[in-house]
Amino acid sequence: MHILIIGAAGMLGNKLVARLARDGSIAGRPVSKLVRNDVVLSPPPPPASFEIETHIGDLSSAGEAAKLVSGGPDIIFHLAAVVSGEAEVDFEKGYRVNLLGTQNLLEAIRSKGDGYRPTLIFTSSIAVFGAPFPDAIGDEFLTAPLTSYGTQKAICELLISDYSRRGFIDGMALRMPTVCVRPGLPNKAASGFFSNIIREPLAGKEAILPVDPSVRHWHASPRAATQFLIRGAEMGGTALGNRRALTLPGLSCTVAEQLEALKRVAGAKVLEKVRHVPDESIQQIVAGWPRNFDAARAKALGFSTEKTFDDIIRVHIEDELQGKLPN
Amino acid sequence: MHILIIGAAGMLGNKLVARLARDGSIAGRPVSKLVRNDVVLSPPPPPASFEIETHIGDLSSAGEAAKLVSGGPDIIFHLAAVVSGEAEVDFEKGYRVNLLGTQNLLEAIRSKGDGYRPTLIFTSSIAVFGAPFPDAIGDEFLTAPLTSYGTQKAICELLISDYSRRGFIDGMALRMPTVCVRPGLPNKAASGFFSNIIREPLAGKEAILPVDPSVRHWHASPRAATQFLIRGAEMGGTALGNRRALTLPGLSCTVAEQLEALKRVAGAKVLEKVRHVPDESIQQIVAGWPRNFDAARAKALGFSTEKTFDDIIRVHIEDELQGKLPN
Repeated sequence: MHILIIGAAGMLGNKLVARLARDGSIAGRPVSKLVRNDVVLSPPPPPASFEIETHIGDLSSAGEAAKLVSGGPDIIFHLAAVVSGEAEVDFEKGYRVNLLGTQNLLEAIRSKGDGYRPTLIFTSSIAVFGAPFPDAIGDEFLTAPLTSYGTQKAICELLISDYSRRGFIDGMALRMPTVCVRPGLPNKAASGFFSNIIREPLAGKEAILPVDPSVRHWHASPRAATQFLIRGAEMGGTALGNRRALTLPGLSCTVAEQLEALKRVAGAKVLEKVRHVPDESIQQIVAGWPRNFDAARAKALGFSTEKTFDDIIRVHIEDELQGKLPN
Repeated sequence: MHILIIGAAGMLGNKLVARLARDGSIAGRPVSKLVRNDVVLSPPPPPASFEIETHIGDLSSAGEAAKLVSGGPDIIFHLAAVVSGEAEVDFEKGYRVNLLGTQNLLEAIRSKGDGYRPTLIFTSSIAVFGAPFPDAIGDEFLTAPLTSYGTQKAICELLISDYSRRGFIDGMALRMPTVCVRPGLPNKAASGFFSNIIREPLAGKEAILPVDPSVRHWHASPRAATQFLIRGAEMGGTALGNRRALTLPGLSCTVAEQLEALKRVAGAKVLEKVRHVPDESIQQIVAGWPRNFDAARAKALGFSTEKTFDDIIRVHIEDELQGKLPN
């Protein structure tokens, strides 16, 4: 299998590369080649049984997409995006990267012709939904995004369904829960605090909680998010019929429940590192976000995730902290 | 009020121009100027109390949109589109006209800057929905189109909501029922027969019914469709909040009910002109179409339509046949 990962230098891209290197195969077949692409240089490749090629390029620049698909990758993971905060601040950049970039990719695939029809796995987001919504959003609820980022993702979902229906790709758009606990440094996403309040205390550092502890949100660990991508590739898009956008399972819990889990897993002392400093603007953004889903379709298709936030914290400790709690 | 109509040479465009010429005003203010644009020459303008300018141009060509908004129209009706059948046959043309054309318009408006923020009324379609759906589709049902045309309309809806939220336009996307009875000659829409089976017999001509009489669909007269556009301009998009796409009211009835209404209004003899010649390909297309809606939101906002198919036929006889039934 020849694999292309666009947005390979990001958090999820790196996790996926590491997972493929470890497994050596995907969907029951050996990986023969992996091409990594991003606008920045990807980190050094992990040891792997297959060749790893690394490119720097911007999918929204003319000709870039054609170069990337010229080798005819069997599976394309398109993870590249400008995050929500940045797409809101820079309107043009958001549309260029998140919409035009994806359109360029789809058109490059279609233009290849000759029956070329790769599996395309696109990371969408729960940001395609906007308030007001029911307590648990079902699989037939409308996409009414309240950000430009969410709009761009919702549009890409529609394009992927149409290009799949027309036979140009075998695509799917996987609506990721908020990935928590996000390792590394904060990015520009307004959702950063959900991870900060766990990751920073576990590293002995202070974290700011800008919202009320009653705020409820929808989470999955980086490990679960990586497994979603792998599961999508195994399954193929045809299993989704004409509706190629899929809300993935996640864990719905409040910030208070996150902090209780942190206390259970790492002790009361760690909790002292979290300072509650309400931020009106973040409160307001978060109020428009989904809190809970009924991801019945994805569960029936074999997607699964953590059952408790304790599990999500344990995954972080295992995968990022070599299993060690702070002293 | 300075009005721009894009797609002015089409059936609905002509009806709207005639209505504006008759009223001389819109949303309680006199019309000062009307600019008509289409890819083909519009028919001679009706007598009006205001100047009518006529342009030929393709919104999807570079620079065309900027020219059209250079005069700063207060209200823009964007009715131009490649119809469903054609967008399905010619993939590139559909995306160019229906998506890129609308994107060009939105970007031309945004680029004007200086606080320019026109009312934009965009004709969307019930083709944004695709089976399976509930008996009556509510205002929170997902858009899962089964045609490229429906995909393009659904994408434009998302863009219009986002550009409105960002303050570049005061927009709305009005999801038109199937307009019936469509006057004039058939176009490439697969829905043509819904009108043909009424219009042709009333003109003393034969019509083919390609589907089973049990087929249920969602209709509004050309007069009601024109009134939807006027009502949208009166209301303004702000009344729609962040969800700028609106399913309009219509009449849900079966083909059998259409034919019974025709018999009641025009007599049993007229009915003999309808020949049932089943067409498997049209049957299959129609099976994916919505049949009924609960358009609660639009009704609460003052949009209304015919209550019986008899009324729809009477509107056709009044508006197109000078009130005369065939001999």
